[in-house]
Amino acid sequence: MPIQVVFSALEWAGGSRPKYLQLYDFIRQAILNRQLKGGEQLPPSRVLARQLGVSRTTVMQAYEHLAAEGYLAGQSGSGTFVSALAPGQLGLLGLKAAERPAVPSAVLLSRRGEAASGLPVGGIAAGNNLRPFRPGVPALWDFPFSDWFRLMARQSRKLGFDAFGYGDAAGYLPLRRALSEYLRQSRGVRCEPGQVIIVHGAQQALCLACQLLLNPGDGAWIEDPGYNGAREAMRLMQVRPIPVPLDEEGISARAGREAAPDARLAYVTPSHQYPLGVVMSLGRRLELLEWAAEREAWILEDDYDSEYRYSGKPLAALQGIGRHGRVLYLGTFSKVLFPALRLGYLVVPPALAGHFQRAKSFSDRGNSILEQATLAAFLEEGRLERHLRRMRLLYKERQDALLYWSGKILGDELRIYPSDTGLHAVGWLQQGADDRRVAEHLLRAGVIASPVSGYTQQFRQAPGLVLGYAPYREEQIREALERMAEVLEGLQL
Amino acid sequence: MPIQVVFSALEWAGGSRPKYLQLYDFIRQAILNRQLKGGEQLPPSRVLARQLGVSRTTVMQAYEHLAAEGYLAGQSGSGTFVSALAPGQLGLLGLKAAERPAVPSAVLLSRRGEAASGLPVGGIAAGNNLRPFRPGVPALWDFPFSDWFRLMARQSRKLGFDAFGYGDAAGYLPLRRALSEYLRQSRGVRCEPGQVIIVHGAQQALCLACQLLLNPGDGAWIEDPGYNGAREAMRLMQVRPIPVPLDEEGISARAGREAAPDARLAYVTPSHQYPLGVVMSLGRRLELLEWAAEREAWILEDDYDSEYRYSGKPLAALQGIGRHGRVLYLGTFSKVLFPALRLGYLVVPPALAGHFQRAKSFSDRGNSILEQATLAAFLEEGRLERHLRRMRLLYKERQDALLYWSGKILGDELRIYPSDTGLHAVGWLQQGADDRRVAEHLLRAGVIASPVSGYTQQFRQAPGLVLGYAPYREEQIREALERMAEVLEGLQL
Repeated sequence: MPIQVVFSALEWAGGSRPKYLQLYDFIRQAILNRQLKGGEQLPPSRVLARQLGVSRTTVMQAYEHLAAEGYLAGQSGSGTFVSALAPGQLGLLGLKAAERPAVPSAVLLSRRGEAASGLPVGGIAAGNNLRPFRPGVPALWDFPFSDWFRLMARQSRKLGFDAFGYGDAAGYLPLRRALSEYLRQSRGVRCEPGQVIIVHGAQQALCLACQLLLNPGDGAWIEDPGYNGAREAMRLMQVRPIPVPLDEEGISARAGREAAPDARLAYVTPSHQYPLGVVMSLGRRLELLEWAAEREAWILEDDYDSEYRYSGKPLAALQGIGRHGRVLYLGTFSKVLFPALRLGYLVVPPALAGHFQRAKSFSDRGNSILEQATLAAFLEEGRLERHLRRMRLLYKERQDALLYWSGKILGDELRIYPSDTGLHAVGWLQQGADDRRVAEHLLRAGVIASPVSGYTQQFRQAPGLVLGYAPYREEQIREALERMAEVLEGLQL
Repeated sequence: MPIQVVFSALEWAGGSRPKYLQLYDFIRQAILNRQLKGGEQLPPSRVLARQLGVSRTTVMQAYEHLAAEGYLAGQSGSGTFVSALAPGQLGLLGLKAAERPAVPSAVLLSRRGEAASGLPVGGIAAGNNLRPFRPGVPALWDFPFSDWFRLMARQSRKLGFDAFGYGDAAGYLPLRRALSEYLRQSRGVRCEPGQVIIVHGAQQALCLACQLLLNPGDGAWIEDPGYNGAREAMRLMQVRPIPVPLDEEGISARAGREAAPDARLAYVTPSHQYPLGVVMSLGRRLELLEWAAEREAWILEDDYDSEYRYSGKPLAALQGIGRHGRVLYLGTFSKVLFPALRLGYLVVPPALAGHFQRAKSFSDRGNSILEQATLAAFLEEGRLERHLRRMRLLYKERQDALLYWSGKILGDELRIYPSDTGLHAVGWLQQGADDRRVAEHLLRAGVIASPVSGYTQQFRQAPGLVLGYAPYREEQIREALERMAEVLEGLQL
C-alpha cells in the first residue's frame, strides 16, 4: 500500500490526547497491522506534516517516540525506517486478529489458586448494605471520627519525613509498644513489643500463620460452626480445614483428635465463639494446650471482639495461660474501631518473631505509617479505653433492645439468649425451620440475617439467624423485627 | 498447706493494677502452681477480706472473675471451691516449671516458611538512614504533604459512614477508575477499572501473582541482576526463581528458554530495568510475548518508576502491546508518592480479575479506605501529574549534580552514564574492584552504596554501585562523593 494511502486513513480524534500522540498511536498500529512493513521508509517529517496539516514538531515528536520504543530506526540524515522485526512477532500482536477466547480458569490458575477459587466469598459483602442485622460491623456512626482525624493530623505533623520512607515491616514500634502494654493489661496476653506483628486485619494474620507454620495438605481444626474467613485463608494457603463440633464449652481436643489426630493447628475463638458466642471452658482450654504441647502443634487464638464484655472484665486470653509457646494470638481493630482501617495484630511466640517479621516484609513491606501512628496515640492517650467504655454501654443497650422487641414482636418464633459480649446475638428459629430459606425471604423484605447453617461445615445446628445489633438504632431494630414477623408469618413456620 | 498460709504470701504491688485483679492474679497462680488444689474450699469473701485488709467487694470481684474463667466453681451458698482439673492439665501450665528451650526454627516452621527464612532480607532496611546514596526512596522532603493531608481531611469528611465498614477488597472503585484512566493515558496500559486490584505495594502484587498462577516448585524467570524483592516473594510462595542474564536490551526469551524452558512466568522491569536501568528493546519485548503465548506462561511487568522519564514521554508498557492476556502489570506509589503509603496496583487480564479479587479478599479484605480515597482525589484533580512534573525536574537536576560532581571529584574512578529516568544511577568502579568490599568501607565512612553484585545471582557483572540520588540535595551528594573519593583512595584501587 503506498504510504500516502496509509496516512490518508488517519482521523484526528477530539479530546485531550495531543496530536503527536494520536499520530504515534496511528503509526504504531499501522506497523503492528503490517500496513507499514519492516524496512519501509517513512516520509520526511516536513512532508508528512504538510500532508496531515500539522506542525513539523508534531511529526518529529511522534517519530522520536516511536524510535525510543524501537518501532522506527535510523532517524539521522538518511531517513526514518520501520524497524525490521521477525514476522512471527508481528503476527503475535496483530491488532486486527481476533482475541483468543477466554481460557477456562482451570487452565489459568495454579492448584492453590484453584483451591481458593472454588470457595464462595464469605465474610461480609461490600456495598451500601449496612442495615439490620448485618453482623460484624461496629457502630460506625458513633465512632469519634473527628477526634480520630484531628489526632491523625497531629501525628502527620509530628512524624519526621523519614517516617514516610520504608519503615519496619513488622509495624511502627510505638504502636507495637502501646499494643503489647494494652494486651498485657486488658487481656492477660504475655508479650513484648518484638512479638507483635502489625497486620492488615485478622485475615492476613491467619494467612501468615498457615503459610509459615503449616505445609500444603496439613490439617487444621476449625470450629464448626465457625468463622468462614478462616476457611478462606486456609484454602488459599492449601491447608485442610477440619471441622470440629462445638458444644456449650467450645470445641474439645478430644473431638479434634478423633477427627484428625495429626492436625497441625487449631483455630479457635475462645473468648466469644464466632458465631454462637460460647465461652470456651477452662478445662477445654487446658486440653487444647495439652494437645498442642504434646503434638508440637499450634493454637491460633482469634480474640476478635472480647473487648466488648458488658459484665466484668473480659476473660484472660488462652495465650496467657499456655507455657510452651504454642499459642499465636490475633486481634483486629475492625470491631473496636472501624473495619476500613484494616489494622490488626498477631502476637507470636518469641522464637517465631523474626520469621514472621521477615514473612511480613516479603508479603507487603508493612502497613501504612499514618494510621499506625494515629492508633498508637489513640492507645497511649487512653482514648481506646474511653471509646470502649462508651461502646460497651451502647451495645448493651442495643442488645437489650433486640431482646426486648424480639420477645414483644416475635415471642417464641425467635429465641435470643442474652450474651455478655460482642456485636451480635443468635436468634434461634423454631425446630424444623430452614434458616437459609428464612434468610432469603428476609433479604427480599430488606432484612439481612445470616443463617447459622451458613457457618456450619459438617455438624448440623438448630436453625438460627446471626443478628448483628451493634451499629443499629433501636427503631431500626424494632422495624426490622416487625418485618421479620411478617416474613415468618408468610412462611407459616 | 493451710489456706491462710497460702494467702499470707500475697504482696500488694504498687502501680495502677486494681487490687481485685492483683488478688485474681495471685489466686490463679496459686491454682496453677497447685498450692490450691482442685476441690479445695476458699475462705468466704468476708473472711478473706478481713485477713487481707481489703474490702469485701475486692474479694468478690476476684472470685467472680476466677469463676467466669473456670478456675473456681460453686459460688452459691455452699461456698467457693477450686475447680477440679485433670492433674496433667495443671502440670502443663505450672508457672514455676522452666520454660522449654527455644526449639530450632527447622522444627517450628513449615517447608515454605523455612524456604523464605533462609533468605537474607533484601529490599530496603528500616530505620533512620535516609542519606546518600540509599536507593529506592523518592524526595520525601519535597512531597506536598500539607496538600496531601488537607485532601485527606476533605475526603474524610466527604466519605459517608458506610465507607468505613467493609469495602470492596479489590479496592475503592473511584480509585480504580482514576487509576485505569491514568494508566491508559500515561502508560498505554489497556485496562478497565474491574481489572485493577489495589494492593499494599509491588511486593503483595508479586505474592498474589505467584500464588494464583504458579504451583509450588514452578520456575519463574528473573532478571539477573534484578530486584531482590521478587526473589523474596517467590521464595515465600515456593516458586523457583531462575536467573536470566541481562544485556543492553534487557533479558532475552532465548536465554530464558535455555535456562528453563518450562518456566511459567517471567518477572521483568522493561521500562527501566532494576537496577541497571536498561530499557528492554521492542524485539525482546515481542520475543517475550511470543514465548508467553506459546507456552501459556505469564509475564509480570513491574513498572516501578517509569513515571520519572526526563526526556520525552515514558515508554508504553509491555502490557499494552501483548494481545493474548498473558501480561500482568504492576506498579507502586512508593516511588511516585512515598513508600509509607503502602499503596500499589496490579492490572490483571479480564479472565483473571475475579480470581484476584477473591484472593485479595481472602488475603486481607482490602486496603484502608482513607488513603485510597485521598489518592483517588489526587489523581482526579491532576495533582499527581503536577507533582510528577516538579519531581522530574528536581530529579533531573540531582542526577546532573551526581554526574557533574562525580566527574569532578572521582574522575575515572567511578563512571556514571546518564539515565533518562528513575531515582538512581549505577556508578561503575574500575575493573577488578570488589564492589562489596568497597560498599562496606563506604558504609563505615557513612556513605550508603549498594554493590551491583548484591543484585546478581548467577551472572557476574562488572563491579559497580547503585546510587540513589532522588531524595538528596546537591551538597549532600557532593559531600558523599568526597568521602567516597577518600575511601577509594584508601583502598588503593
